[in-house]
Amino acid sequence: MPKQIRLNAFAMNCVAHQSPGLWAHPRDRALCYTSLDHWVALARLLERGKFDALFLADVLGVYDVYQGSPEAAIAQAVQVPVNDPLLLIPAMAHATRNLGFGVTCAVSYEHPYVLARRFSTLDHLTGGRIGWNIVTGYLNSAAKGIGLERQSEHDTRYEIAEEYMEVVYKLWEGSWEDGAVVRDRARRVFAQPRQVHRVRHDGRYFRLDAIHLCEPSPQRTPLLYQAGASARGRQFAATHAECVFITAPSKQVAAPLVADLRRRAAAAGRNPAEILVFAMMTVITAATSQAAQEKLEEYRSYASEEGALVLMSGWTGVDFAQYRHDEPLRHSRQQAQVSALEAFTVADPQRVWTVRDIARHAAIGGRGPVVVGAPAEVADELIAWIEETDVDGFNLAYAVMPESFVDFIALIVPELQRRGRYKRDYAPGTLREKLYGSGRARLGTDHPAARFRIGAPGGR
Amino acid sequence: MPKQIRLNAFAMNCVAHQSPGLWAHPRDRALCYTSLDHWVALARLLERGKFDALFLADVLGVYDVYQGSPEAAIAQAVQVPVNDPLLLIPAMAHATRNLGFGVTCAVSYEHPYVLARRFSTLDHLTGGRIGWNIVTGYLNSAAKGIGLERQSEHDTRYEIAEEYMEVVYKLWEGSWEDGAVVRDRARRVFAQPRQVHRVRHDGRYFRLDAIHLCEPSPQRTPLLYQAGASARGRQFAATHAECVFITAPSKQVAAPLVADLRRRAAAAGRNPAEILVFAMMTVITAATSQAAQEKLEEYRSYASEEGALVLMSGWTGVDFAQYRHDEPLRHSRQQAQVSALEAFTVADPQRVWTVRDIARHAAIGGRGPVVVGAPAEVADELIAWIEETDVDGFNLAYAVMPESFVDFIALIVPELQRRGRYKRDYAPGTLREKLYGSGRARLGTDHPAARFRIGAPGGR
Repeated sequence: MPKQIRLNAFAMNCVAHQSPGLWAHPRDRALCYTSLDHWVALARLLERGKFDALFLADVLGVYDVYQGSPEAAIAQAVQVPVNDPLLLIPAMAHATRNLGFGVTCAVSYEHPYVLARRFSTLDHLTGGRIGWNIVTGYLNSAAKGIGLERQSEHDTRYEIAEEYMEVVYKLWEGSWEDGAVVRDRARRVFAQPRQVHRVRHDGRYFRLDAIHLCEPSPQRTPLLYQAGASARGRQFAATHAECVFITAPSKQVAAPLVADLRRRAAAAGRNPAEILVFAMMTVITAATSQAAQEKLEEYRSYASEEGALVLMSGWTGVDFAQYRHDEPLRHSRQQAQVSALEAFTVADPQRVWTVRDIARHAAIGGRGPVVVGAPAEVADELIAWIEETDVDGFNLAYAVMPESFVDFIALIVPELQRRGRYKRDYAPGTLREKLYGSGRARLGTDHPAARFRIGAPGGR
Repeated sequence: MPKQIRLNAFAMNCVAHQSPGLWAHPRDRALCYTSLDHWVALARLLERGKFDALFLADVLGVYDVYQGSPEAAIAQAVQVPVNDPLLLIPAMAHATRNLGFGVTCAVSYEHPYVLARRFSTLDHLTGGRIGWNIVTGYLNSAAKGIGLERQSEHDTRYEIAEEYMEVVYKLWEGSWEDGAVVRDRARRVFAQPRQVHRVRHDGRYFRLDAIHLCEPSPQRTPLLYQAGASARGRQFAATHAECVFITAPSKQVAAPLVADLRRRAAAAGRNPAEILVFAMMTVITAATSQAAQEKLEEYRSYASEEGALVLMSGWTGVDFAQYRHDEPLRHSRQQAQVSALEAFTVADPQRVWTVRDIARHAAIGGRGPVVVGAPAEVADELIAWIEETDVDGFNLAYAVMPESFVDFIALIVPELQRRGRYKRDYAPGTLREKLYGSGRARLGTDHPAARFRIGAPGGR
């Protein structure tokens, strides 16, 4: 059987996520982000389309690198306002039975003791359908929100994240033994205290002396997502993540990233084939190729190029407002421009890119590729990504909410199913079991969390 | 019109809340606390009964004063495991239209910038039906969970809480002006940046330099609950709270507490009649007086006296395991026993209480009164509380989940409605409007939050 394509829908509890300006499109419903009905309808739609999960991004700051101010972001609702994503999940989970939920939570703003309880609660309430996207944060504005001058240095953030993971693994895997909870009404015993263990941790960044507040949930540790792009980030992902989210503008850029991730995973003693890699992508489709192109052009008439520069400036730390729009950018010119350009120019090294080119390119689908075409064309391209880059699936961003998902489910899903590339129904069990098979509700023994289990070799 | 009785249902995201041991009762469903269906059914039930709100308690630690260990708490599920309460609310809110939600969140574990976003998100998603119970925490075990040796001293905790409130008021009331968000698709302007203000705070305990991440929600500041019992706590409540939750074993104990609260509120420049005071109470009712007494006795056969001592030890800091069960406790004996006894003995100062008496008393309904009787008897007693103590309503704890609420709604609500003491339908609007009348979605100008509004007298 050919490799099955995995699909997440990619969204955020805000108005403009990856395609700034499209909120003004007459059919766009992103302005309804404060309504539970809106999110519940989206979850039901995605479940009809057999999506593996809805993946929710998050930031705890604003995009204020562009013009050194958040003004443009505020005017265009570019990822601000941004509401808490965790609070969307319970209502969506209650309205669905199989859809998974991946949610971004930074390790920078909350003690691991508290975060561990939030995810255990979500894992219980969703019946084991929760995933955690581990992020270290990238916006200085978020650090200032919690009273710091600026965020920690990049590598220090990963050092903190490593210790954070150790603490949450101890809580999730090593506090309550499997047999601890008996719920015995006749004997009037809820749990066996001898099988509930106090976690002690006295590290460089965190201290803890407590039992985990929650009994074991279906998955214990939530399904772990990560999206680190740097070498340090990829090493972290290869160590901890089960699902990795990459942003690459082309198959040529993606393939070596995937190979590097799998190499690092193997070196860490994990099964490299089981790291599921999702490439961000935006798909615009219609019944015919021409209709799809017309839809793209219509969308473009709403896209905000300034909004795109707001995002690009935030992501790269380079204020694009300092350049003229027709100014060509080159690798050689300024070090500061390199990271900003890299994503685009590696894909097409001969082309000269102006600021306007970048803005226009990023205004739909951010730094990810936009695939436009009739169902057969899109399916061809998705399969080519799978074959040529070894990714496992896609994080599908929307241009128009929820039209991009409606179109994909109506046109692309049946095409992929006909080609034997996409499931016709969900597998049973928790999110981890749906991805890895029955009996895999918990993390495998090759995962670093396993050594914190009671009685683990080399463990407590 | 006689004073209307306000009602909250009192619960917690755990197995045993105020009546330890009753989880073993064959009709009790508290073991279903990890299921969204369970909570959604409870919310729908309460809305049928026109309850003002479901009030969710929380702790972030375990009850480990008794025997110096959490073992007894774990064995009897006495408020442990305890899952995150906030994550229950979105699913319940989606299934209801009028029920309010009060939720406990401590100011000790999360930066105000992050907590402010959580509550704004909940206020948006519930359509303005969220309330926040401000607590400073009382368990040392919670402090150890986040890496501290012990919690701060009592009065310092309130000093921190005062500054915390200032920061969240600045974010909720003073960052986004009312006219800032225009959502103008034609002009492609979401918000006017000039009407969105950066909040700067450089205090003793908190620093912040950020805009609030959320656009204004229906209530902006959530409805504020507080339950401080000490003089310092009552002063905090009189300053900040709109709804105050008291625990008093009798009307004689409650009346002076209520009078003191209203006096303090008036001294703080607030309308003392608008501080809504809710007394904790457990009601056990049936068609006849005798049937209600039999129900109480049946419940008692499941009540855990050891569980009650676990709770009493945690609440008072006195390890009751050090006394024989038949040992009489007296005010004069040990200072440590005073606080533990006060609640009971003030009500009945001549009686000699043994440890067993206290355990038996607290095993149903904790430190609050238990009212047992036929509908007319219970209604008489509730009305007597309202008349004699000046409380505004009750926080109704359950003995058996959800049977206590089912019984109350079937038998007591119609009786109170017949007597003109309880609403026949909800008022329109947000939770604050339902309690205070239309046009009152936001905090009044007499509230300390008002001075942080843009253009407020004496404000920015």
